[in-house]
Amino acid sequence: MAKAKNILFVMYDQLRFDYLSCAGHPTLRTPNFDRVAAKGVRFTNAYVQSPVCGPSRMSFYTGRYVHSHGAAGNFYPLKVGEITMGDHLRKLGVDCWLVGKTHMVVDAEGMSRLGLAADTPIGARVAECGFDVWVRDDGIVAEGPLGRFKAFPSAYNDYLAAKGYNADNPWHENANAGIEGDGSIASGWLLKNARRPANIQEQDSETPWLTSEAIRFLEAEHDKPWVCHVSYIKPHWPYIAPAPYNDMYGPEDVVPVVRSQAERRDPHPVFGAFMDNPIGTTFSREGVREEVIPAYMGLIAQCDAELGRLLDHLDATGQAEQTMIVLCSDHGDYMGDHWMGEKDLFHDCSAKVPMIVYDPSPEADGTRGTTCGALVEAIDLAPTFVETMGGDVPGHILEGSSLLPWLRGETPEWRDAVFSEYDYTMTTMADDLGKGPKEALLFMVFDGRWKLMHAEGFRPMLFDLASDPQELTDLGTDPDHADEVARLMARLNRWARRNAQRTTMTDTALIGARGRAFEAGIYLGVWDENELDERFRPFVTGTAVRDYTG
Amino acid sequence: MAKAKNILFVMYDQLRFDYLSCAGHPTLRTPNFDRVAAKGVRFTNAYVQSPVCGPSRMSFYTGRYVHSHGAAGNFYPLKVGEITMGDHLRKLGVDCWLVGKTHMVVDAEGMSRLGLAADTPIGARVAECGFDVWVRDDGIVAEGPLGRFKAFPSAYNDYLAAKGYNADNPWHENANAGIEGDGSIASGWLLKNARRPANIQEQDSETPWLTSEAIRFLEAEHDKPWVCHVSYIKPHWPYIAPAPYNDMYGPEDVVPVVRSQAERRDPHPVFGAFMDNPIGTTFSREGVREEVIPAYMGLIAQCDAELGRLLDHLDATGQAEQTMIVLCSDHGDYMGDHWMGEKDLFHDCSAKVPMIVYDPSPEADGTRGTTCGALVEAIDLAPTFVETMGGDVPGHILEGSSLLPWLRGETPEWRDAVFSEYDYTMTTMADDLGKGPKEALLFMVFDGRWKLMHAEGFRPMLFDLASDPQELTDLGTDPDHADEVARLMARLNRWARRNAQRTTMTDTALIGARGRAFEAGIYLGVWDENELDERFRPFVTGTAVRDYTG
Repeated sequence: MAKAKNILFVMYDQLRFDYLSCAGHPTLRTPNFDRVAAKGVRFTNAYVQSPVCGPSRMSFYTGRYVHSHGAAGNFYPLKVGEITMGDHLRKLGVDCWLVGKTHMVVDAEGMSRLGLAADTPIGARVAECGFDVWVRDDGIVAEGPLGRFKAFPSAYNDYLAAKGYNADNPWHENANAGIEGDGSIASGWLLKNARRPANIQEQDSETPWLTSEAIRFLEAEHDKPWVCHVSYIKPHWPYIAPAPYNDMYGPEDVVPVVRSQAERRDPHPVFGAFMDNPIGTTFSREGVREEVIPAYMGLIAQCDAELGRLLDHLDATGQAEQTMIVLCSDHGDYMGDHWMGEKDLFHDCSAKVPMIVYDPSPEADGTRGTTCGALVEAIDLAPTFVETMGGDVPGHILEGSSLLPWLRGETPEWRDAVFSEYDYTMTTMADDLGKGPKEALLFMVFDGRWKLMHAEGFRPMLFDLASDPQELTDLGTDPDHADEVARLMARLNRWARRNAQRTTMTDTALIGARGRAFEAGIYLGVWDENELDERFRPFVTGTAVRDYTG
Repeated sequence: MAKAKNILFVMYDQLRFDYLSCAGHPTLRTPNFDRVAAKGVRFTNAYVQSPVCGPSRMSFYTGRYVHSHGAAGNFYPLKVGEITMGDHLRKLGVDCWLVGKTHMVVDAEGMSRLGLAADTPIGARVAECGFDVWVRDDGIVAEGPLGRFKAFPSAYNDYLAAKGYNADNPWHENANAGIEGDGSIASGWLLKNARRPANIQEQDSETPWLTSEAIRFLEAEHDKPWVCHVSYIKPHWPYIAPAPYNDMYGPEDVVPVVRSQAERRDPHPVFGAFMDNPIGTTFSREGVREEVIPAYMGLIAQCDAELGRLLDHLDATGQAEQTMIVLCSDHGDYMGDHWMGEKDLFHDCSAKVPMIVYDPSPEADGTRGTTCGALVEAIDLAPTFVETMGGDVPGHILEGSSLLPWLRGETPEWRDAVFSEYDYTMTTMADDLGKGPKEALLFMVFDGRWKLMHAEGFRPMLFDLASDPQELTDLGTDPDHADEVARLMARLNRWARRNAQRTTMTDTALIGARGRAFEAGIYLGVWDENELDERFRPFVTGTAVRDYTG
């Protein structure tokens, strides 16, 4: 088996860590995820840097915490100066391609300030978060009173139109809607429609379409090694699947909800605001999970089948032996657990993600089919890719650590905690809680056992995942746990004080500069020449010059 | 009197806050600083964001903390993506000019990544920290075994050469050296030479030369309002002044040293390492201050005289009535106080600076000749300039607050603490203390009474400036002051957690987005159409489409 020449960096959107059969789901079958897990390492403690798409992805793509890159919410542009995975890889002669979704929003003002146009090679990469675009599609071509959502072109809608879907917006009216008997749409936005079949041929739905694009990429000639980010929109909402996935699972396959009445008694104010919002309320209603979760499981099953297509293609073409495969997600989905919908907070179902890595190199033979419980973060992938491609990890820019040692059975020096963040400024909950743009901030720190959530201006939340793996008991104000809270807050604060913006000087350059002032001719604290080494004396004495003092 | 049309932003280098007669120096006479103070406001609690040149200046020029802009040490390039004072001003139709020093180091890698060349209009501004360059001169054309220091062109050396100074490096051999009887140089780098006259005509020395450049700027036609940064190198070392300034002051004019034996007993490890370094040791030696401080005072007296030339020019041309004048410094100088030389730590003599602002507008008439004790930071100037020029302060980028309300006799909502930082990675002290690039960090937080210095990995230092204005008693480990330490650490930590990188979204945009998802067609948590307002229902029902489910 050869070393990895290329990397297939596959991301799903809103895929919970525990909705895979290899991760122990009792009813969902994901034989292809399991197939990668069987030949790779499944990381069982992988956390994202934010539980929402945009900031989480910007952390994956920059290898930096949200607090560092600043694109802290969905649709916050990533600053033009942020260095991406693609920048690091291209320095190594490796291309970095996109097939699918990034949630990148261009920093138009930053580009304009620097005179960068998106139609130049450099500008295009900056505008696309460092990727060269094979095809981009972010899904969510929603329609509302403001018109069609977002200015992203939809390659997928163009495909559907070309295939004869003649609706005005086939994403909206076919791929993500069912059909009523009278021919009107039964929108996937309405949860009551979750188990209907989407009004689309299965092979034309989003996941197969993107897989075909990925295979088209794999079939093309590439003159350089590459990282290809195959980034699926699913199983993200709207929760509606084409046949046969719409009724592959039923209410009998839905795992019990994880919640307790205790959670509703005097909840942490931020938790309370989120559980009481319309999404939390709906997902807490009798019967909603039973309709939505089967659709969600169907969408995952479809992702799994399409992963099988990809894997089969790699096997059939011999590329499997030289292609690292990474399977991950940008965040999870509460699905009614903890009285919540969506993602927003830091319970494991939201902030923990699947992370499976197959490394074809012989050094990884010893770990095939194993799991690894190390505290892994989304920001670890960029350095993993740099190291896999033979580069030195620029530790003054990238904040994660390469996973290669784990893949090769080593036990490296490793972090003692993972961090995640959420800026809820844009939500109505910030209004309800009276928090402005500088205060509507949430942080998570988790050390493998204790998980602290810190919300600016509020009391802490604390969970002991050893005794309470379902995170049902908030110990944040329990006097017996004040020491744990203080310890984790100190850890969070040390993290917040880190010098993450010092990205223009390498550690080597800084250390190399120590004690070099005299070499450069800067003689501070020297009374007379006798205090100077002979090498330096000529610079402060001797030269004969004309007298200008008179 | 008109409102300010232009702003003269004058900076001195290494000028202590207390080395001005208006600030109470008992022997030094600075009639021209006093003249500005008499018609403006003198801020008596102005702190810089770092006590060394480079990071301090980058904070002045970006209006952001060092922790935000990342150029944390001398010669650390400022990231290409950092937005500068010049960027904000040019949006308002105001030019931003440089006459003198910035200590800016170009982010060559960042520019290369974006295809920016320093010889284009945009690239030139990025390379010069947002300024248009009238003349740049950073001084310090040192000579050592590594050759001539730095790649900055020296406009000043060119001037001297044109004036007939025929030395190879007249900065080194004339402006900053005396002359021995045998014609050899008596370098200003050697402190024993501090009171000799520099081997140069006074009018050709650095301060008058730069003043002439500033006057040349003032005499030129400008088609737009401007901020002009007149940035002197002096009274920064080498400590040597031309006649008559070299012996204008003598040992009898030197104020007593501020230090105590108690400071040397079990000092904080970082403080101890700095006081024991060669600079601290030399400045603590009997007789050194008596030679160096008179030269330093002479350099300040020369700065004052040249400020007089500038003020006279403004008065004579009528520009004074439409020109705001700001006088400040990038940091102070220990000058033997606290057993230290140089700057590096956060005692007031190092981290506190002069800050005098004259606002010609009638609204400022009520505050002329007053002092203001508000906690002011270097980062306040950028927003002050933006507001003076009629702009709205972009609070999602600029971290300071406009001083205009204080100038106009108002009492605005104001900060409760100031912050300063120092990255000592490049120093030999980091080696001595065993601290690497991610640990060699110092922070100061000062709330107007209590000053905490936090050094990563060490105990705290704490001073009570109410009972101990000379900062001689470190209370950092005093159990009676544990609450103060905890309170200030909490303040520092809250500051460290701030979302300073969220610069691509305005507060207004974020708040405006609250609750807008339905408008955009994103219907989350909705079971059926009856839960939707009529305005939204057509988007989830109704449209007649072809059936593709079969």
